[in-house]
Amino acid sequence: MKLVVVGGVAAGLSAASRARRLDRNADITVLEKGSRISYGACGLPYLIEGQVGSLDELTVYTPAFFENERDIRVRTNSEVVGIQHSRREVTLRSGEKVPYDRLVWAAGARPAMPFAGRNVFCLHTDKDALRLESFLREQRPKTAAVIGGGYIGLELATALRARGLEVSVHHEATTLLNREDDWLSKRVAERLERCRIALHLNTRVNSADSLGADLVVVATGLKPNVELLAEAGAGLGRSGALTVDERMETTLSGIYAAGDCCEARHIVTGRPAWIPLGTTANRMGRVAGANATGARERFEGIAGTAIVRIGGMAVAVTGLSSQQARREGFSPVEVVVEGRNRPKYFHGRKVAIQLVADRNSRRLLGAAIVGDQGVAGRIDVVATALAAKMRPDALAEVDLAYAPPYGTATDPLITAAHQLVKVLD
Amino acid sequence: MKLVVVGGVAAGLSAASRARRLDRNADITVLEKGSRISYGACGLPYLIEGQVGSLDELTVYTPAFFENERDIRVRTNSEVVGIQHSRREVTLRSGEKVPYDRLVWAAGARPAMPFAGRNVFCLHTDKDALRLESFLREQRPKTAAVIGGGYIGLELATALRARGLEVSVHHEATTLLNREDDWLSKRVAERLERCRIALHLNTRVNSADSLGADLVVVATGLKPNVELLAEAGAGLGRSGALTVDERMETTLSGIYAAGDCCEARHIVTGRPAWIPLGTTANRMGRVAGANATGARERFEGIAGTAIVRIGGMAVAVTGLSSQQARREGFSPVEVVVEGRNRPKYFHGRKVAIQLVADRNSRRLLGAAIVGDQGVAGRIDVVATALAAKMRPDALAEVDLAYAPPYGTATDPLITAAHQLVKVLD
Repeated sequence: MKLVVVGGVAAGLSAASRARRLDRNADITVLEKGSRISYGACGLPYLIEGQVGSLDELTVYTPAFFENERDIRVRTNSEVVGIQHSRREVTLRSGEKVPYDRLVWAAGARPAMPFAGRNVFCLHTDKDALRLESFLREQRPKTAAVIGGGYIGLELATALRARGLEVSVHHEATTLLNREDDWLSKRVAERLERCRIALHLNTRVNSADSLGADLVVVATGLKPNVELLAEAGAGLGRSGALTVDERMETTLSGIYAAGDCCEARHIVTGRPAWIPLGTTANRMGRVAGANATGARERFEGIAGTAIVRIGGMAVAVTGLSSQQARREGFSPVEVVVEGRNRPKYFHGRKVAIQLVADRNSRRLLGAAIVGDQGVAGRIDVVATALAAKMRPDALAEVDLAYAPPYGTATDPLITAAHQLVKVLD
Repeated sequence: MKLVVVGGVAAGLSAASRARRLDRNADITVLEKGSRISYGACGLPYLIEGQVGSLDELTVYTPAFFENERDIRVRTNSEVVGIQHSRREVTLRSGEKVPYDRLVWAAGARPAMPFAGRNVFCLHTDKDALRLESFLREQRPKTAAVIGGGYIGLELATALRARGLEVSVHHEATTLLNREDDWLSKRVAERLERCRIALHLNTRVNSADSLGADLVVVATGLKPNVELLAEAGAGLGRSGALTVDERMETTLSGIYAAGDCCEARHIVTGRPAWIPLGTTANRMGRVAGANATGARERFEGIAGTAIVRIGGMAVAVTGLSSQQARREGFSPVEVVVEGRNRPKYFHGRKVAIQLVADRNSRRLLGAAIVGDQGVAGRIDVVATALAAKMRPDALAEVDLAYAPPYGTATDPLITAAHQLVKVLD
């Protein structure tokens, strides 16, 4: 069985590795258009911030590792430019044809780039990071404008601020981080202000030059890399990303997809959603790789759980905000509770927790949590509760761990769940 | 309705507060035998360590707060020495009778003290802490022997070590932290060794003097304060603590119990267990207080989730260890996975995760996690999974949050769950 995997970062390598574990005899080839595989793309903003020393530190595996340890052929600088599914082959930019029996499409996404210019950057690949880093070092810009208030935009804004630049953020919507939530956006805006980052919401940027900054970073979102598969006949969802079934198979039999190029079932709405993130790319890749070898695994879906650090503050979300829930047909109610991650006498820091539930079904729908410490573990608890379809009543009764260095006797998350129950009753 | 609550620390004050919220007219009195209420008893070892400045910092509320803000009468120095349930009254040491319609017994537990002496201490109440602190300051002991390798014993051992004493720990069993788990005990023993604390397992101490230490701390466990209620006819469980139903009512109608004096249903075994901890004391108190006012709330039970800091390392458990599971009639399988709390390039520290499941039912049974960082959130995720009766298969698919400052793209907990699934298959 010849398995070809297109894409050598998160989803592609997860797929290839899992396929190898389940099928010792498969002939597995990974085609990566770039020159580097397996780098932690989520670490790129921290490379710019200076917290990570070099791109090499971000690179987990080399092609040689995959060749030698996993018997997986990895071909870098091998961009696929055509798919002939009836003949079961892909064409590389070089003209070479690579045959397959099964294909895993993990070609990711690319940044939407409305502008270009010598001082205009994005931060999506290793190359983008190197180019931006060179510019910062060589041109020593004093001012930076970041277009886009999503995860990458805000991580980059604080990274550039930490490097001493004067930074502004320009965002088209009125809410930040793709969350459509006024409360969360307000908390984030306050932190940006504390970092002395100028935030312009509800602002459409018509040209990079108009911002008058030495450096412009575009982080206005991603476009899934689906064109070749779409030409080959694969179906796309409403988001524009590939449609897959619960086995991660596209509408073309024998072609699986995983990662930023495809949709997945949202565990709260039960409907397809496109939320490109590294964690879910890995998880989808596992399932796509397994099923490409003939297994019948199911991808359980995504909750959109994510966390980002903005000026020292952790901002985490899972599931739906009230506004998102309303659009999906729920009748959301929400509570916000402020507590501490530890007792005050143990240097506890503030943590604010927003929980959302459906008034009719009493189902928990989502959460947002912000604070300088203790955010990740708590959002993961809610993500677990969402996966288990727990009601707020049950969440309020979870037996969480406590000792003064690690928490409070009654966790603010438990308090929030109790308050939610009260609102629902 | 006259409600009397016996005990003014965690469970008692939770019960009284909840009762007031649900019944504005009840006449509520809290009887506390000590002179101080509402102090964070779990903070006492950290007071000794010097991380907490004073007992006052540990005190959350004063009697005046309860009187003025919640219309709850709080009587300190009011030890109950008798219960006449047929007449619905308790007798104080002063001889005074206090009548009640409903009683919440939250009298806690006391340390088992096989030894006494000028240089022999325990650490259970505020007074114990003051006495130990005075001795440390005035006598400047050079060596300390801690009898008992449970939570308090090990917290105290590292606290005394941090103050510069030469410390030994003497423990009767071969496993530490009441967990009956060789793997966990070994990890803890290694850390104690690194702290240069001498550990003597499987060692019965016959006299405090025989240890030849300037200071001896006894932390060999607790005894529930149940004698008066037992005399009044209340039933006790196999542990010796009070039997309660799911509404936290004892076998005596109208008398509820909560906290360290009573058992509770273990959510994994479904059977009564006695695991005295501050978190569950609060939770039980809430339910006991509600039901004492006529509500019909159910206490969902305990998982024994706990965390402790030992020489900078967090050690956390929830549910059952393999050995405990075997005794409860399960056929446990377990896996241990070592990972990092963050990427290596982001100064990630090692986290080791042990997961236990039942071979027959595939149910998740418990976990133990150790590491210098990132332990609390992960044990809470497993505690949530236990509450939801999730299978390892489902745990492996939870959509956890990730960004380099807060985690890894594939969390070690997810890897552990996957490995557990593989062992079960």
